[in-house]
Amino acid sequence: MSLTHFDTKGDAHMVDVSDKPVTSRVATAEAHIRMAQATFDIIADGRAKKGDVLGVARLAGIMGAKKTPDLIPLCHPLPVTKVAVELILDPDLPGVQIEATVKTTGQTGVEMEALTAASTAALTVYDMSKAVDKAMEIGGLRVTLKDGGKSGRYEA
Amino acid sequence: MSLTHFDTKGDAHMVDVSDKPVTSRVATAEAHIRMAQATFDIIADGRAKKGDVLGVARLAGIMGAKKTPDLIPLCHPLPVTKVAVELILDPDLPGVQIEATVKTTGQTGVEMEALTAASTAALTVYDMSKAVDKAMEIGGLRVTLKDGGKSGRYEA
Amino acid sequence: MSLTHFDTKGDAHMVDVSDKPVTSRVATAEAHIRMAQATFDIIADGRAKKGDVLGVARLAGIMGAKKTPDLIPLCHPLPVTKVAVELILDPDLPGVQIEATVKTTGQTGVEMEALTAASTAALTVYDMSKAVDKAMEIGGLRVTLKDGGKSGRYEA
Amino acid sequence: MSLTHFDTKGDAHMVDVSDKPVTSRVATAEAHIRMAQATFDIIADGRAKKGDVLGVARLAGIMGAKKTPDLIPLCHPLPVTKVAVELILDPDLPGVQIEATVKTTGQTGVEMEALTAASTAALTVYDMSKAVDKAMEIGGLRVTLKDGGKSGRYEA
Amino acid sequence: MSLTHFDTKGDAHMVDVSDKPVTSRVATAEAHIRMAQATFDIIADGRAKKGDVLGVARLAGIMGAKKTPDLIPLCHPLPVTKVAVELILDPDLPGVQIEATVKTTGQTGVEMEALTAASTAALTVYDMSKAVDKAMEIGGLRVTLKDGGKSGRYEA
Amino acid sequence: MSLTHFDTKGDAHMVDVSDKPVTSRVATAEAHIRMAQATFDIIADGRAKKGDVLGVARLAGIMGAKKTPDLIPLCHPLPVTKVAVELILDPDLPGVQIEATVKTTGQTGVEMEALTAASTAALTVYDMSKAVDKAMEIGGLRVTLKDGGKSGRYEA
Repeated sequence: MSLTHFDTKGDAHMVDVSDKPVTSRVATAEAHIRMAQATFDIIADGRAKKGDVLGVARLAGIMGAKKTPDLIPLCHPLPVTKVAVELILDPDLPGVQIEATVKTTGQTGVEMEALTAASTAALTVYDMSKAVDKAMEIGGLRVTLKDGGKSGRYEA
Repeated sequence: MSLTHFDTKGDAHMVDVSDKPVTSRVATAEAHIRMAQATFDIIADGRAKKGDVLGVARLAGIMGAKKTPDLIPLCHPLPVTKVAVELILDPDLPGVQIEATVKTTGQTGVEMEALTAASTAALTVYDMSKAVDKAMEIGGLRVTLKDGGKSGRYEA
Repeated sequence: MSLTHFDTKGDAHMVDVSDKPVTSRVATAEAHIRMAQATFDIIADGRAKKGDVLGVARLAGIMGAKKTPDLIPLCHPLPVTKVAVELILDPDLPGVQIEATVKTTGQTGVEMEALTAASTAALTVYDMSKAVDKAMEIGGLRVTLKDGGKSGRYEA
Repeated sequence: MSLTHFDTKGDAHMVDVSDKPVTSRVATAEAHIRMAQATFDIIADGRAKKGDVLGVARLAGIMGAKKTPDLIPLCHPLPVTKVAVELILDPDLPGVQIEATVKTTGQTGVEMEALTAASTAALTVYDMSKAVDKAMEIGGLRVTLKDGGKSGRYEA
Repeated sequence: MSLTHFDTKGDAHMVDVSDKPVTSRVATAEAHIRMAQATFDIIADGRAKKGDVLGVARLAGIMGAKKTPDLIPLCHPLPVTKVAVELILDPDLPGVQIEATVKTTGQTGVEMEALTAASTAALTVYDMSKAVDKAMEIGGLRVTLKDGGKSGRYEA
Repeated sequence: MSLTHFDTKGDAHMVDVSDKPVTSRVATAEAHIRMAQATFDIIADGRAKKGDVLGVARLAGIMGAKKTPDLIPLCHPLPVTKVAVELILDPDLPGVQIEATVKTTGQTGVEMEALTAASTAALTVYDMSKAVDKAMEIGGLRVTLKDGGKSGRYEA
């Protein structure tokens, strides 16, 4: 087995997907951001009063999915057909659980789009809360579902 | 204490930094990506033969820092004056440790630029290795140093 | 009837168009910019002498159409197959009438691309003329034609 | 008086601001979007239930301000130091009134950034509501305040 | 024969490709950058020691291909399916020979993508070496192969 | 002498310019595009009749200068204060001579911005004329003037 992003000489290239069929594809990624209890309380309260950290982060995640081929050097540009980002306050972390789902009809998968959506949403939560808490930590960023291509269904 | 990205009515806005002095600022962020031993071995070998996952990820991180204000909705655009991204193979994870350092001379800090550089580098490692390992997980994404603004030095 | 850009919980998302057929689509939008008579005269004269405000605005409109998914958060990225922007000096305003037409072969419509092309062209006329007239006003920005999707032909 | 965006031969260029002093600058622009009463009611209700058209449009406007030099060909890139976008439901239109304020510390003004923020917010309201109303119209897009440069204070 | 990027009135527009069939397309472009012998030696040595000018330029070229519709005003956006950029040290120039190959499955060709990839790679070699040599010169930027559209195969 | 874009370990990084003084800087670059006599005649005629290849290419060059830090991986983002691009029909080539001048007030030079402006203008001439001539060739892309930084004046 070998890394597909290098050619036979070992040089980086964008993999040729010209001959792959156009199929429906979906991927889901998740992440979380852990924070101090006081920060969690402010976000939870803020939400109730319209100061909507989670709403801003959701939108940032959706827009981030569209920027994936600009960010990831060897990623193919793809016309995404759906992006949804869910953010849930989790008192047990304490912090926020994030799940991003992306679909496309294309020649290659959308794992990178789902991961980029989830990480952009998490970074936005950090940005909006960093005035009160610099020690927040983002983790658990991984693909939980991928379906639709030749390599079949992957579920974590 | 409250979140600065909302005004008194609770609406999101980009914080006014017009009256903050222009000072030298620096921030460092770190992250890691954990992978299967077999994946780690391929990257380590690939590197020796010029198929340079870490080199591509380093460059993606540097370019990612410049895209921060495009990704993070309420982040101020800043002319960064230095970006360095270090990636080290860590056999104990097994995986890759990432550290990004960003400097600017400006009116606001560069934590978001450092975090975006580190996460973009980590996502690029994922992209280049996902053909052999979909279960990789990115974590430990956090700010370890921030210095240069009114709020003083922060070190994790 | 309800807004499609929110899911059942009321959270914003990019609507799933994965199952919509790929069809030929077209949209036309229009706008105008009203200005002082003296400004109108300068643009009209300038045009005769090659200082081509309308030519620059036309190009800005065409390029603006391609940036639509970067600007409009929940808009799907689409490979536009035609963009034309027409600008006509209208002495009765006095000012400039703008009409933008966009086509695609895709799963969703191009109204937003046509509107963005028209508004970017209008904003560019403002930018190029603001040294002599800050009171110009842009109006009448609306969709006049949409055809090609499931919802049928719309003509204003 | 003449248009500054053309040189002595009549060719378009980006005006040389190298010798202008760095000063604090501010600009405010406004716009409105007029819609059917039924559409207005859905947005007003939707807001109450968290499906927040105005919140999404506000964020789009803020991010749009940062994209101004990408959209407007001869516009100088500027590090904006504040962006605020206010959207108010106006039952008399019926529709939405939009006001955008942008600040910078730089060598040229931010009228184009304020206008772009207002128009992007208006276009986003259109995008999110077009499933129920294609006949909405955007108008009244103009600069209402500009201050801080050599040309002095302008107020509409 | 006439230029297709102007309509019958002579105004610039993005050519309508809506009715062209979706076919497999490929284009190859080449360029070179000529430099002082001393500069050539530093790059050649640097490469051996991991300071990889050619690796960075290759990646810049690949990412540049994806930015083509942002750079070239009347160019259609296209989902590229493959990008490869080859850089070879040529002691006879002395300098670097660059060849870029781009593929897509679409309604229009990818010559501009191949040319943009080659020129971006060449500019990046300049950027990384300019501290030691400002007199480097880029030339020979041209299309050497185009295939897959109605106009048939072109080979230089 | 060594390449500044690599650190002591040979890894690529964005050079630290934090401690360099903010000074006025200027750079000029030139390029040309050579074409068949018939192509030259069409452009020359087209220009007379408003189908303005050179006007579109000029604007593309100006906008290209602003995109330089997006294209060139290790290039610092800079607020350019002037961009001018001149295109002259040269019957002796036959073809077009291009000269781009960029200014900034900043901590690093603008050679890359001038080169990117010139090459983007040349690529746009290619794009607009390729329907009649695929064999055009771009060359002579080089810096002819750089002034304003520590390294002093450079003139070719």
